[in-house]
Amino acid sequence: MVKQLEHIGIAVSDMEKAIDLYSRLLGRMPYKEETVETEGVRTVFFRVGEVKIELLEGIGPDNPIDRFVAKRGAGIHHLAYEVEDIFEAIRYCKEQGFHLVNEEPRVGADNKLICFIHPKSADGVLIELCQSIQ
Amino acid sequence: MVKQLEHIGIAVSDMEKAIDLYSRLLGRMPYKEETVETEGVRTVFFRVGEVKIELLEGIGPDNPIDRFVAKRGAGIHHLAYEVEDIFEAIRYCKEQGFHLVNEEPRVGADNKLICFIHPKSADGVLIELCQSIQ
Repeated sequence: MVKQLEHIGIAVSDMEKAIDLYSRLLGRMPYKEETVETEGVRTVFFRVGEVKIELLEGIGPDNPIDRFVAKRGAGIHHLAYEVEDIFEAIRYCKEQGFHLVNEEPRVGADNKLICFIHPKSADGVLIELCQSIQ
Repeated sequence: MVKQLEHIGIAVSDMEKAIDLYSRLLGRMPYKEETVETEGVRTVFFRVGEVKIELLEGIGPDNPIDRFVAKRGAGIHHLAYEVEDIFEAIRYCKEQGFHLVNEEPRVGADNKLICFIHPKSADGVLIELCQSIQ
C-alpha cells in the first residue's frame, strides 16, 4: 500500500528559531513555505534525500499544532507515507481495523490529498497517508 | 553535514504486536532484527524507500526505551541522519552549540557509529547522527 516515507512533520513553537536550527543542523535552507488556513498551520519544508522535513507552526485560534505543543511540547508530530491511491488506502486501513481521523481525504499542504490514522490504533504514532494531486 | 535521513526509531511496548501492525500498515515484512545489549534494545527493521523504520523494544533493567515509554508512551523516539564523517559532525555540532548526549561515537545497531543530540537543543527532537562502519 505504502510507496515511501514522504515527510516527517515536526511541531515547533517558534518557527523562526526552528528554521535557524534546521538550517544549521541539515546544512541547507528550506525550499518552500506554505500556509494551510483550513488545517491551522504554517509549514516550512527542507529536503533531505528523498524525504522532506515539514516544520509545523500553529496559526489561528484552537489549531492542532498549538494543542499538541501545549500537551507534549515541541517535537515530532506525524509521519507521512505516500500512497498510490488514497481512496484505496482508506478502504484498506478500515478493513485492517485502523481508526481513521478522517475517512474522506482532505486537501493538505504541498498539493496533496491526506488522511490521518489515529495514534491510538498505530501504537502511539500519528500517521498521515498522502497522495499527490496531479 | 547531513547526507540523508537514515532511519526513524519508534519505541514500542510490545514488539510482536508492533511487527504485526507495521507489516499490515506498510504491506511488507521486516528484513532484519538485531539486539544491541550495550544500548538495552531489541531492534526490528522495515525498509520504506531509502529510509528504514527501526522498531525499538527495551531489554534488561533500566533501559532507555522502557524509560521513554513509561514517561511518554509508545511512539516516535528519534530521527537518525546519516553523515559522511561522524567525528567531523560531532565537532560541527559542538561549534554550533548543539548539546550532545555522547561526545564520543558509540557502536549502535546496523553496524553504525552513532551519537545523539539532546532534544533540549533540537527543539524537542532526539536526533541521532550515524555513519556506517565500513
